[in-house]
Amino acid sequence: MQQKKFRRQENSFFVEGAKNVTELLRSEYEITHLLFTETFEIENISLIKRCGAEKYKVTQKVLESAGSFQSNDAALAVAKIKENEPLKLEKPELILALDDVRDPGNLGTIIRIADWYGLNKIICSPQCADIYNPKVLNSSMGSFTRMNYFYTELHKFLENCNKPIFGAFLEGDNIYESELPADAVIVMGNESKGISPEIEKLISHKLTIPQFGQAESLNVAIATAVICDNFRRFQWKK
Amino acid sequence: MQQKKFRRQENSFFVEGAKNVTELLRSEYEITHLLFTETFEIENISLIKRCGAEKYKVTQKVLESAGSFQSNDAALAVAKIKENEPLKLEKPELILALDDVRDPGNLGTIIRIADWYGLNKIICSPQCADIYNPKVLNSSMGSFTRMNYFYTELHKFLENCNKPIFGAFLEGDNIYESELPADAVIVMGNESKGISPEIEKLISHKLTIPQFGQAESLNVAIATAVICDNFRRFQWKK
Repeated sequence: MQQKKFRRQENSFFVEGAKNVTELLRSEYEITHLLFTETFEIENISLIKRCGAEKYKVTQKVLESAGSFQSNDAALAVAKIKENEPLKLEKPELILALDDVRDPGNLGTIIRIADWYGLNKIICSPQCADIYNPKVLNSSMGSFTRMNYFYTELHKFLENCNKPIFGAFLEGDNIYESELPADAVIVMGNESKGISPEIEKLISHKLTIPQFGQAESLNVAIATAVICDNFRRFQWKK
Repeated sequence: MQQKKFRRQENSFFVEGAKNVTELLRSEYEITHLLFTETFEIENISLIKRCGAEKYKVTQKVLESAGSFQSNDAALAVAKIKENEPLKLEKPELILALDDVRDPGNLGTIIRIADWYGLNKIICSPQCADIYNPKVLNSSMGSFTRMNYFYTELHKFLENCNKPIFGAFLEGDNIYESELPADAVIVMGNESKGISPEIEKLISHKLTIPQFGQAESLNVAIATAVICDNFRRFQWKK
């Protein structure tokens, strides 16, 4: 299940470690298998009781041989992948759209950032990393359970989306001087190529994070955090 | 030289890849050895000419066997480590102080962020990752050449520092509502433990990035970016 094709075949994914498994137990994901150590059981007795999965109390050694973590003295859970369905958007609502964000670590970090800033919907182009990739799940630090995803052709989604569309570019309007509404799509682009020309045409507001020094760019996850912070701050200050 | 003890023995470090090597060639670091491919030579002929190092034109294969990159068709350079000396602080000036930031990827990303926001001094506690660690250098994307570092006991530095000292905490003043001066030290803490109690006592202004959702925390590099952005934005808006 570390590979996408096997996850799709089984329609299942797995998470490891105390943080991710407890978040999964608290979520509405359907857990099919739960492996845990005695320590984890003692600390999460009621969460485990409520869970309808096949349950196995195992040793740390078994957990480590079953999963990808070098060290795991807590738990491992297998759960059903959610169907890829269009998301019902609220108004006003801030959502993210990712144009070809390929690095699993970046996607996981972006999910954690979105969760911090109270966003709960992410639209992903088909070339984005798979959210059920273990590296995505792990770097999200449990936030993946609170996020809703829809993988789709981004241009089709944006063409039919009834919100102003903001995108991060190296040459856009200074974000410090821009109106940042409570209702918007924020588009973030690929790690090396940025937002693709096809998607760029659909952006109604190009934003830039002012650069004060000489670094050529910011990592996509860092830029996502700064942009979300500016949107929330703008509304806070109003 | 991938290990700190050998870097200290040789008083040297190495960088790989086109971006880092060209930035190093443009910096004031003393390069002792420069290995490059024909492609890199054609693109950087004048930079290479100006460089006083021992120079070797090599194949991609040689570069890859000499360095840590799986793929490197550009260059590799060995340079002298700079002496660890106290930095002369300006007034007003924003600087970073890192209390036990151990992950090399985080330190490299923080260097890139500091460079984006026009900071050029970072004070590191002795337990921080070594800036000459290849992972730090690589994730800084060349920004390490524009940054000045001083590794020292942080409490001694802060006790003698003539600037207001800001630190990021989960329970501080809302950064959106705080005065953020042009002259300050921004202290960032350890990945799992945050700022240590000993250093906390020396913080004059505790800041918090408002949380709108349910993620428990932000990664230290992400928090650094958001805080630097708020400081620069505050001054911009004044």
